[in-house]
Amino acid sequence: MSQDLDFTIPDLGDRRIKSPIGLSTTLGDRIANYVGDDELVRCDVGAKTGPQAPIERRALLEKAGPREYIYFGPSHVHAGIVTCGGLCPGLNDVIRAITRCLWHRYGVRRITGIRYGYKGFLPEYDLAARSLEPDVVDDIHKMGGTILGSSRGGGERTSDIVDAIERLNINMLFTIGGDGTQKGALAIAEEIERRKLKVAVVGVPKTIDNDLLFVDRSFGFETAVARAAEAVAGAHAEAHSSMNGIGLVKLMGRDSGFIAVHTVLAVHEANFVLVPEVPFDLDGPSGLLARLEERLARRRHAVVVVAEGAGQELLAELEGTDASGNKKLADIGTFLRDRIQAHFKAKGMEVNLKYIDPSYLVRSAPASPTDSVYCERLGNNAAHAAMAGKTKTLIGMVNNEFVHIPISVATKSRRRVDPEGSLWRDAVDATQQPLVMKNAE
Amino acid sequence: MSQDLDFTIPDLGDRRIKSPIGLSTTLGDRIANYVGDDELVRCDVGAKTGPQAPIERRALLEKAGPREYIYFGPSHVHAGIVTCGGLCPGLNDVIRAITRCLWHRYGVRRITGIRYGYKGFLPEYDLAARSLEPDVVDDIHKMGGTILGSSRGGGERTSDIVDAIERLNINMLFTIGGDGTQKGALAIAEEIERRKLKVAVVGVPKTIDNDLLFVDRSFGFETAVARAAEAVAGAHAEAHSSMNGIGLVKLMGRDSGFIAVHTVLAVHEANFVLVPEVPFDLDGPSGLLARLEERLARRRHAVVVVAEGAGQELLAELEGTDASGNKKLADIGTFLRDRIQAHFKAKGMEVNLKYIDPSYLVRSAPASPTDSVYCERLGNNAAHAAMAGKTKTLIGMVNNEFVHIPISVATKSRRRVDPEGSLWRDAVDATQQPLVMKNAE
Amino acid sequence: MSQDLDFTIPDLGDRRIKSPIGLSTTLGDRIANYVGDDELVRCDVGAKTGPQAPIERRALLEKAGPREYIYFGPSHVHAGIVTCGGLCPGLNDVIRAITRCLWHRYGVRRITGIRYGYKGFLPEYDLAARSLEPDVVDDIHKMGGTILGSSRGGGERTSDIVDAIERLNINMLFTIGGDGTQKGALAIAEEIERRKLKVAVVGVPKTIDNDLLFVDRSFGFETAVARAAEAVAGAHAEAHSSMNGIGLVKLMGRDSGFIAVHTVLAVHEANFVLVPEVPFDLDGPSGLLARLEERLARRRHAVVVVAEGAGQELLAELEGTDASGNKKLADIGTFLRDRIQAHFKAKGMEVNLKYIDPSYLVRSAPASPTDSVYCERLGNNAAHAAMAGKTKTLIGMVNNEFVHIPISVATKSRRRVDPEGSLWRDAVDATQQPLVMKNAE
Amino acid sequence: MSQDLDFTIPDLGDRRIKSPIGLSTTLGDRIANYVGDDELVRCDVGAKTGPQAPIERRALLEKAGPREYIYFGPSHVHAGIVTCGGLCPGLNDVIRAITRCLWHRYGVRRITGIRYGYKGFLPEYDLAARSLEPDVVDDIHKMGGTILGSSRGGGERTSDIVDAIERLNINMLFTIGGDGTQKGALAIAEEIERRKLKVAVVGVPKTIDNDLLFVDRSFGFETAVARAAEAVAGAHAEAHSSMNGIGLVKLMGRDSGFIAVHTVLAVHEANFVLVPEVPFDLDGPSGLLARLEERLARRRHAVVVVAEGAGQELLAELEGTDASGNKKLADIGTFLRDRIQAHFKAKGMEVNLKYIDPSYLVRSAPASPTDSVYCERLGNNAAHAAMAGKTKTLIGMVNNEFVHIPISVATKSRRRVDPEGSLWRDAVDATQQPLVMKNAE
Repeated sequence: MSQDLDFTIPDLGDRRIKSPIGLSTTLGDRIANYVGDDELVRCDVGAKTGPQAPIERRALLEKAGPREYIYFGPSHVHAGIVTCGGLCPGLNDVIRAITRCLWHRYGVRRITGIRYGYKGFLPEYDLAARSLEPDVVDDIHKMGGTILGSSRGGGERTSDIVDAIERLNINMLFTIGGDGTQKGALAIAEEIERRKLKVAVVGVPKTIDNDLLFVDRSFGFETAVARAAEAVAGAHAEAHSSMNGIGLVKLMGRDSGFIAVHTVLAVHEANFVLVPEVPFDLDGPSGLLARLEERLARRRHAVVVVAEGAGQELLAELEGTDASGNKKLADIGTFLRDRIQAHFKAKGMEVNLKYIDPSYLVRSAPASPTDSVYCERLGNNAAHAAMAGKTKTLIGMVNNEFVHIPISVATKSRRRVDPEGSLWRDAVDATQQPLVMKNAE
Repeated sequence: MSQDLDFTIPDLGDRRIKSPIGLSTTLGDRIANYVGDDELVRCDVGAKTGPQAPIERRALLEKAGPREYIYFGPSHVHAGIVTCGGLCPGLNDVIRAITRCLWHRYGVRRITGIRYGYKGFLPEYDLAARSLEPDVVDDIHKMGGTILGSSRGGGERTSDIVDAIERLNINMLFTIGGDGTQKGALAIAEEIERRKLKVAVVGVPKTIDNDLLFVDRSFGFETAVARAAEAVAGAHAEAHSSMNGIGLVKLMGRDSGFIAVHTVLAVHEANFVLVPEVPFDLDGPSGLLARLEERLARRRHAVVVVAEGAGQELLAELEGTDASGNKKLADIGTFLRDRIQAHFKAKGMEVNLKYIDPSYLVRSAPASPTDSVYCERLGNNAAHAAMAGKTKTLIGMVNNEFVHIPISVATKSRRRVDPEGSLWRDAVDATQQPLVMKNAE
Repeated sequence: MSQDLDFTIPDLGDRRIKSPIGLSTTLGDRIANYVGDDELVRCDVGAKTGPQAPIERRALLEKAGPREYIYFGPSHVHAGIVTCGGLCPGLNDVIRAITRCLWHRYGVRRITGIRYGYKGFLPEYDLAARSLEPDVVDDIHKMGGTILGSSRGGGERTSDIVDAIERLNINMLFTIGGDGTQKGALAIAEEIERRKLKVAVVGVPKTIDNDLLFVDRSFGFETAVARAAEAVAGAHAEAHSSMNGIGLVKLMGRDSGFIAVHTVLAVHEANFVLVPEVPFDLDGPSGLLARLEERLARRRHAVVVVAEGAGQELLAELEGTDASGNKKLADIGTFLRDRIQAHFKAKGMEVNLKYIDPSYLVRSAPASPTDSVYCERLGNNAAHAAMAGKTKTLIGMVNNEFVHIPISVATKSRRRVDPEGSLWRDAVDATQQPLVMKNAE
Repeated sequence: MSQDLDFTIPDLGDRRIKSPIGLSTTLGDRIANYVGDDELVRCDVGAKTGPQAPIERRALLEKAGPREYIYFGPSHVHAGIVTCGGLCPGLNDVIRAITRCLWHRYGVRRITGIRYGYKGFLPEYDLAARSLEPDVVDDIHKMGGTILGSSRGGGERTSDIVDAIERLNINMLFTIGGDGTQKGALAIAEEIERRKLKVAVVGVPKTIDNDLLFVDRSFGFETAVARAAEAVAGAHAEAHSSMNGIGLVKLMGRDSGFIAVHTVLAVHEANFVLVPEVPFDLDGPSGLLARLEERLARRRHAVVVVAEGAGQELLAELEGTDASGNKKLADIGTFLRDRIQAHFKAKGMEVNLKYIDPSYLVRSAPASPTDSVYCERLGNNAAHAAMAGKTKTLIGMVNNEFVHIPISVATKSRRRVDPEGSLWRDAVDATQQPLVMKNAE
């Protein structure tokens, strides 16, 4: 049931301006059409037959795309774009697409890039914004990172940010960033409302971990998997080339193991994959160390892929013992490295462990062609949404359709790998690891 | 309405053997589960609100995956795998996944690769089949092509093929190939039925053009787009580096322009994209030649991407005039090359046209990491389906779920780029070509 | 003996200006030094021992690099850069390096890019030159082609070009191009001399075929081999996947087979390599067709790599028979394709030949890291040479040292693959083709 | 002067067997020839003109290649191949080439791969050797690492190793490894001599650092630079995208900074390169920290590339202060990271430093096409040398010719970046760092 979800996208007001992009309004003429607000996309596609079939969930999202009538007159638009948080492949592609769609399709001529995330709005940093136009953005997708710069934090300074938005006369804000960024964007939009301003706030959700609710995949994810796959291939070459060689690769994935799981499926060379969603023991007959020992006895080398958020319950213990309580210090990668080495040392068995943490090399890559396509379309749809006066919304792709997702809904929780679903099942098949690495209690 | 579609997957018979793969049957225990035949996936996700909303289509497909009870005893299985038609990135990945899933998960020990497509079944070719096992297939995904070999045709020799299947004692046939291949597979399955044999026929649909009904994307498609993007980038470098330089790239896409459209979205450097779904004129004020002339006047270079099936109505005229009637000779790429050159020559304007047809280089590439993941999962699900005794079915991914699609349904028509939809709209935005390149009548 | 070679580099005049780049003049202080005109590099490194040893050749070239005293005052310099002929990976890298070295090291502020080759100098084209500075060139090495544009021809218009040089007040001309371009540059320099102008003419030789006399390798060559290797890998996948599959790849190499030879050594998957330097027969017991037949009988697939200049004597015959006399029409690639198909058709043997001609995709690629390094260093040394008032010289790398080579010497003939040397021997080993494919006479 | 160098390659004895590879012995017949022992290659190509010109060094090396008469009868050969030390791109290519040349060209049928380096010879490890033939090695060049496995050490167990060689009846040993490996190989060859055995010992020098005396470049070096360039591009994206972003990349190069220097030339995006050959200060007005501060003030981001062997004199101090004396702990990368962060913290300036150490990802890569060509040719020449009965020799490429280098000569010292030479000069130009970062004393 979906009664608790409110999927309505707020509008800034009536749309009275005919869109300048000149699409067709006739179905069947083989010319691209505008999208109506009455076009919806279903989220849940699972169904059950038979008498015990559950009531179907009715979650429906508004389809994204250009509206025939828009809220803003292009000549009055001043758009701001801000990128926040850690790097992710495709940031520049999104900046490029928003800029080009506003400029070429709508004729908007004032587009401003805010520097270094939300901090670019704060007076104490005194950061001059950067004017954006096609000549500036045309080739930026070939570079990793973000030409605007990014930073963490600052989003909690809602009032200062809205002051800056007023001072800059921005009436359309595009926030490209993760969970925290979008929560900040929602607070900004609410403060804007309180001040009775007419500023559209449209987010493009960035999460290299692919853990966004509803959304098929987040931009940059496929590029990240391709880069991570190179790291695992390297770990395999190292492991395979030493006696009792162990390649241990830590990949991104704080709450969700999507990168790790897709990488082991892509690379075919990992023997264990550890993700936050599936707890495991280290010790005991079913634990990782015993399984690793079996694998080495059989094949003389092993590759272990671990998502950064895996095994938190093991680290919690550790933290308990050393009384630090500092969650930030708990690094599953180095923890596993040390525990594996200690284990085999205690057994008098020489192993050659190579530990690889490729994170910056993964997140700083330029977007792959597929991600480039995706970012281009996300950016276009963000521009269309803002021009139509939509606000407090994210742009996402759900079941291959671009949609508007209310920020409040999307940031409620995170999408996770279902340990009982087909993706995890296929990952277990690919690694041939045991289905369960917990000891019976 | 979907009354005309029958989505039921035929079974070979009752499933009485407990699956050896040992998944959980308990929901909520965080251990991967079997899939039940009552689990379905909805195809159509579009919806309309309001009083004029159409009745929703109810097309539902059976979810793919391992069943708790299977039809075949693994020790009695003899599986055959055949690859047919033109190359496509990922063929070896699919062969690898089917082989490994049958071998490692089910304990099947007789897996046979048929050589060179359906011809491998025909007595006159006398082609020895190839025994497959993990050691043979473990590294084949690093190579393009198919280790089994492929060929066109032969599928119409239904009776000879079934004779061979009987002779080889194969009770499980995996057909990896396109439309024609799968129609052949259906005929084989029907002949098998007539002979009252118990042979499961499961297809993995291959279409580099991405034109399979229902299915989100076909395997190899993303790799193809990445390679095609390199060719367009090369065309752009050539065009940009000459006076009145024109780069003309022909890409695959006989009936559907998906590769062309995704490529221009990925590469950001094409100025015109021509696909089978959107007719265009060459001459006249709105035709391609006039538009190209304008572009050259403005920017001194241009890149044109054309799908092989585009502009067939123009070629038909041509064929009419030269009385050949030979449809095979009509090549839109060289036709456009010649017409563009003739046009500018007649105008006394020197242009430098470079014509690029990268087809073999696109289709012979090894699969990208994303396609590798996809092929692995298609292959696993094909193995699960056959072990459960499913037959006359394809494996596909619909709305991110793996499903069974009856061959008869999937081969009825092809998926095409919707000229009124968002993908084409975004492609027009990316190229900035006119929405319509037909002259008013 | 080398008496007939004159390796002296002409100077424009005395060098009286202290270089602004501030290198050390002290040997042994571990700080980079200027280069003196008395530092030479030996070309020929072969030697023979024993009484019958030949007299050693004494060819010595002047070492390139920054001179302590320079001819031009940086504030009076107006540099022109022109790129001519077909594309080659690394053109933008060379433009970038010259511009940056002049700007950052010497403080030159007037650098002009001539558009579209020598034609950019000709009045009838009326092409506005492009001002170059670091901001313009900083990222251009990421793109293939040349940002200045290129064209063939125009170099024979010596007098018009020198008129334009005078009009533009250019006193330093960098010509990036092949044989014809550099011969044109020499004529330009001679006309400049006749007019008693003080203009340095420094060439950076471009030949993707790697056929420059003396020089270890030409820029872009390694990138070209890497791209060509992809094409041959594709041909192998195609050939290997069909019954009697033949992959036929035509690569660049009009007079020299270096690209073809290096590619078959890189890719390990070609069975025949045909180059201009080694004649071969088609027919007869030792000819290519018989050898190909043997190979197909043995392995059922074959890959043939042919340089575009190979087999000219065969084409000459052909031209004889069809009385055309048009040398341009003779294409060894399509000729071989047709002859191979006709041969097997006559034998009643079905073969599947795939013909691949990847030329534009090879030459339009951006430079690989190794080529980028090389181009950067060539460009730096060109800038140093011109600032020192050197003229009529090319920049090359000989035995791993950068040197000045008089244009007149370098353009006398071309470097070729020695059919009796180790490179060809290793290529024959890699393909396992017969050492001789000519029939005894 | 070169009197102290003895470049003679020892022979095992007279060569009386006609080589089976069937090359030509006639010059001028355009058929590949054997190489004679009287063919030499000059190492030093520098020369000075004028009265003060120094006496030329006369270092000449024997040319590598197949000899017309060989020492070993192919049917009596049992070849052993061993790979030692850390990974390097191209190891599998070299194994492949030696195996294939011995097998296909000479008809050798006993080729044995020793497992895990010299340890594979030692009785206590009890490692079964692996039989090598074309089918085993044909595709191994597509994988990084070494299919034989590798390890450090064991080479000092000379007597045990020669015992094993006798026991295995190996009469031809190929040692692929670094400095220590080749010193071990020399000791093995000397012990073999003492025992009056006839075993050829031929080394293929492996040093990813490119620090081999005489040799133009070591195999794997270009691949390493290409991978390192990706890491620096990532560091640049990270640095450029944060306020006062600093990307710090540690690259391989214990004694020589070749990888670091080539990488900054390839990638154009580093602002400082630090190598073992050029000392620098951290503190003081000319030190790195002050220079970095200036750079940040000017551009708000910076990229620093440091070779692992750089700044050892700074670490020595550090070690002095903390009384550890453990040279292994001194890591210039983390040392710089900490010192840079401390410096800016003390100044109250927020910087965002990202530290990247890509070492395993660099060394585990498969060889690039250019490196593949090089490895193929090194391996062929190693096989030719051993068949001719050459021993105590390495195979190298000097001035583009393959040569024999006596192990004793090559391992005397290492090649280093000349701080007064053109390579370092160009690197300083590329980074625009100060020529000197030492404070005046």
